[in-house]
Amino acid sequence: MPIEIERKFLVTGDAWRAAAREVVPMTQGYLNDLAAMDTGAMKASVRVRIQGDEAYLNLKSRELGHTRQEFDYAIPVDDARGLMALSVGGVVDKRRHYVEVGGWLWEVDEFLGENAGLVVAEIELDSADEAFDPPAWIGAEVTHLKRYYNLALATRPYAAWTDPERAATDAG
Amino acid sequence: MPIEIERKFLVTGDAWRAAAREVVPMTQGYLNDLAAMDTGAMKASVRVRIQGDEAYLNLKSRELGHTRQEFDYAIPVDDARGLMALSVGGVVDKRRHYVEVGGWLWEVDEFLGENAGLVVAEIELDSADEAFDPPAWIGAEVTHLKRYYNLALATRPYAAWTDPERAATDAG
Repeated sequence: MPIEIERKFLVTGDAWRAAAREVVPMTQGYLNDLAAMDTGAMKASVRVRIQGDEAYLNLKSRELGHTRQEFDYAIPVDDARGLMALSVGGVVDKRRHYVEVGGWLWEVDEFLGENAGLVVAEIELDSADEAFDPPAWIGAEVTHLKRYYNLALATRPYAAWTDPERAATDAG
Repeated sequence: MPIEIERKFLVTGDAWRAAAREVVPMTQGYLNDLAAMDTGAMKASVRVRIQGDEAYLNLKSRELGHTRQEFDYAIPVDDARGLMALSVGGVVDKRRHYVEVGGWLWEVDEFLGENAGLVVAEIELDSADEAFDPPAWIGAEVTHLKRYYNLALATRPYAAWTDPERAATDAG
């Protein structure tokens, strides 16, 4: 069973842009909302994503933090459009930049639309305590803040956040 | 976008068994419950099914009655087992018999476990008002009774139904 370990950080400044080797526009929606996961009504989120001429259906278990089960399937783009129309909340639009620094691959998500202004970087690790070298543009960790989940951004976008919500991090 | 039109009927007696040309054991679970559909928290159900050495992930829109959008994807059986563990409610076990009568293909679902005693027959049509010839063992229609949805059986199995619930049909 595939296990995914990810940590998520705020991004400071624009220095990362020079190191980006690829950018992929992504549009995604969810068939459920965060509340369904929080109450235990659902044990997995269901996401549909269109990126360029590819589309994917993704299911992730709801364990909090950085360790989750994940299942991902390529589906026809037409199906994805049909499924997107069945999503709850809004569609999340972003540009994902792949940035390699010192042998580590960072995914820098620059959000658009209702989530414009939000930029986060994720790194995938083999274990929760694996050491890595964060580049200078990596800010505070927000792995455990649910409002940063893409699932949460679909129903409560960055535009709706308060200043304290924008300022808080995993450290407090 | 694939559209599926199905009508569902109770089955009386065992005469259909002689005409069954194939039987497929199916085990299925749902990542959401009926309540999520009823409240509009979700616009589609998400089902995982294992049948023999094949497995499928299925998404259906929540329009009531017999007209629905449906998406179905083959997935690895190991994935299906992992996803089944993330389902809500119980697992629905049944034997699906394919019965052809007068050019019409009927799917007769004989439920097991907590749903033992329930046998229903479904027919897939090109339009909601398409005429067809029901064989003698087809009983009253239950297309519009939600408790017969497999999704509903996962959380409230046939064993839990009252006698009036077992007796009622679309006609009343």
